Amino acid sequence: MSRPSITLTTDFGQADGYVGTMKGVILSICPDASIVDISHDIRPQAIRQAAYVLSTAAPYFHPGTVHLVVVDPGVGSERRPIVVQTERATYVAPDNGVLSMAISQEPPRLAIHLTRREYHLPFVSATFHGRDVFAPAAAHLAAGADPRDMGTPIPVSDLVSLPFNRPALQPDGSWLGEVLHVDRFGNLVTSFHCRSMPSKAGEGTMINEHSAIQVAGHRIGRVMRTYADVAPGDLVATIGSSGRVEIAVRDGNAATWLGVDVGEPVRVYPTALIAEARP
Amino acid sequence: MSRPSITLTTDFGQADGYVGTMKGVILSICPDASIVDISHDIRPQAIRQAAYVLSTAAPYFHPGTVHLVVVDPGVGSERRPIVVQTERATYVAPDNGVLSMAISQEPPRLAIHLTRREYHLPFVSATFHGRDVFAPAAAHLAAGADPRDMGTPIPVSDLVSLPFNRPALQPDGSWLGEVLHVDRFGNLVTSFHCRSMPSKAGEGTMINEHSAIQVAGHRIGRVMRTYADVAPGDLVATIGSSGRVEIAVRDGNAATWLGVDVGEPVRVYPTALIAEARP
Amino acid sequence: MSRPSITLTTDFGQADGYVGTMKGVILSICPDASIVDISHDIRPQAIRQAAYVLSTAAPYFHPGTVHLVVVDPGVGSERRPIVVQTERATYVAPDNGVLSMAISQEPPRLAIHLTRREYHLPFVSATFHGRDVFAPAAAHLAAGADPRDMGTPIPVSDLVSLPFNRPALQPDGSWLGEVLHVDRFGNLVTSFHCRSMPSKAGEGTMINEHSAIQVAGHRIGRVMRTYADVAPGDLVATIGSSGRVEIAVRDGNAATWLGVDVGEPVRVYPTALIAEARP
Repeated sequence: MSRPSITLTTDFGQADGYVGTMKGVILSICPDASIVDISHDIRPQAIRQAAYVLSTAAPYFHPGTVHLVVVDPGVGSERRPIVVQTERATYVAPDNGVLSMAISQEPPRLAIHLTRREYHLPFVSATFHGRDVFAPAAAHLAAGADPRDMGTPIPVSDLVSLPFNRPALQPDGSWLGEVLHVDRFGNLVTSFHCRSMPSKAGEGTMINEHSAIQVAGHRIGRVMRTYADVAPGDLVATIGSSGRVEIAVRDGNAATWLGVDVGEPVRVYPTALIAEARP
Repeated sequence: MSRPSITLTTDFGQADGYVGTMKGVILSICPDASIVDISHDIRPQAIRQAAYVLSTAAPYFHPGTVHLVVVDPGVGSERRPIVVQTERATYVAPDNGVLSMAISQEPPRLAIHLTRREYHLPFVSATFHGRDVFAPAAAHLAAGADPRDMGTPIPVSDLVSLPFNRPALQPDGSWLGEVLHVDRFGNLVTSFHCRSMPSKAGEGTMINEHSAIQVAGHRIGRVMRTYADVAPGDLVATIGSSGRVEIAVRDGNAATWLGVDVGEPVRVYPTALIAEARP
Repeated sequence: MSRPSITLTTDFGQADGYVGTMKGVILSICPDASIVDISHDIRPQAIRQAAYVLSTAAPYFHPGTVHLVVVDPGVGSERRPIVVQTERATYVAPDNGVLSMAISQEPPRLAIHLTRREYHLPFVSATFHGRDVFAPAAAHLAAGADPRDMGTPIPVSDLVSLPFNRPALQPDGSWLGEVLHVDRFGNLVTSFHCRSMPSKAGEGTMINEHSAIQVAGHRIGRVMRTYADVAPGDLVATIGSSGRVEIAVRDGNAATWLGVDVGEPVRVYPTALIAEARP
């Protein structure tokens, strides 16, 4: 059998040794675990960013992977440590909505409140549940523990769900969404999603290659296949690798160039509108 | 048997490939090693920071782990490359005090000056002993080599020891310590340590929930269990996850808010004082 | 048999989950892979920096290692995804010159254009070939696939080669090179290479301990063995760990101190000149 995989997504950074400490705990309980970092540079306490990043990476891991997420502004309060199981994977996290986007892709079939002390470290601090509660739980799960033995079942509908703003239809027929994430290259990932880019216009999907995008006073006339379809330095909209509309500057940084950040409104004018406006 | 673990703590950063190179050396010698990063973002040449970070993470690894630390301002000079063995673990580092805090928790029973050339790379550069001396030594140890075969014994009392300022009693009955570490969240880890937070006052321990803390002109009236015990934006003192008094701002950054860094004086007024002052 | 190693060198940073996603893809295809990060903090789209960093790390991995490099400003354009095999290792990258320095050290014996769809993910996005093309290729190679089955052979001489400026002889007998890389410590790695530092002067090598270095208006009178050979705060030239002349400030940051970056001209005055000038 292949080694069990555990992924880590935290806002701990990589300077302080917090992540290394969690890995020590994991390997003490499940020495064969293959531990993979998804990100430790989530902005401090940015639950939405963590939810987004996790949702883009998790589907690419093999079935049975344990995904551990510790972005936990409520540590020490009454928020629940949970494990959520879907058909594909097992998630361990605080119940603060950080799993919302990942499990919306693969609906959960089991949620457990991690109450059983035998699956925590012997001494549980008030401020570092990543080490004392979450890492041991993930390691025990990777080593084969049954989540039902680890605590109390919770109805899936009781899990904290993060309100992600879905694009809203405007009176003029356009759709209003927002910038969901800014990546290292300054690319703007928006809340407009489509599984894949349809090849024909006017098929009822909201976004296709004839859609126009408006952001920060700039209008992008159509959606391109890739950055290389425009000249260096030009603004370009594409369907990004996570299936969302992304706004980029070829060989440049769109966030800096446009002066925008997460939350910036983005407007999409679907094909139909443009088609009507044509002579 | 499970795979041997090697942890890495360096000030090499993660951009230059120095750490990857060391991992290449390790895997060439000990292909089964499970390599875990503790931190590579120790401030350049900050031996004390590395000593602190290592001491918080090392106890959480399984017995037999090899901890490799390369923060080495004296590379190329006469400082000794050493291996130190305790009951729990094996440490490889330059003899510059970087192991002081970790081995004060688990006294060493063996120290070796790594003089034997067979355990170095064939060509030893003058500036990258992490690659040429320390990584091969750690890998050979993880693969089962006996440290006694790797060099000359040193009396443990001869190891360089870093003076960590223990809190000092002041004429007014308070204790004077300092900020030891500032973490990613801006939390201030102080030099005041206690194994766990005592639940009753006046038991002779220096710190308990009735202690008052003074830092940068601010007075914190008592020690709380966790951040969530104060309102967002408020200054709070807790016993942190490493057993030390930590000063934080709930949902904020205490280092920025107070304008302080490592070395800032911190004063603790123990319970007794306060108790006496009560009517 | 020991686990196959795959190294990763990208400009993806570590915040966005791109690297974690690639690792998920790799472990899905080759669950036993030992994945090692060389660097993910290559400056965005800095092909030359990636080429340099890879060339310093790759030689330290065991034979048979698969090195995956994704610094890919041309993603989505016609640039070819390739695999290149040398006697020691297998490289997977876009054909943009990023392998130039590594394979100049160990000439390639096979180059393949990765055209076969079976070795890609089922859906290939236009913007993230690291996930959809390169990671699956590296994983299949680590799992034992024959590169010849993965696409079309390319003559090695057709590979894109990056022009690295070799030092050029000047009319006054000096050699003109440049700063190739600035590392985390602010050390300047130059384009002057020598396998090891010759111990005797005047043997026809360009660099030895009597060479003088000029950079940013400063003259360094000779090449030292190590930083510790000068006083703290002093400028020093050494033969660095990659066999290149490096310029450093002991216990300081040469890049900041001199105000220079990659591309800064560096001039070397070989021994002969100095010898002639002596009485």
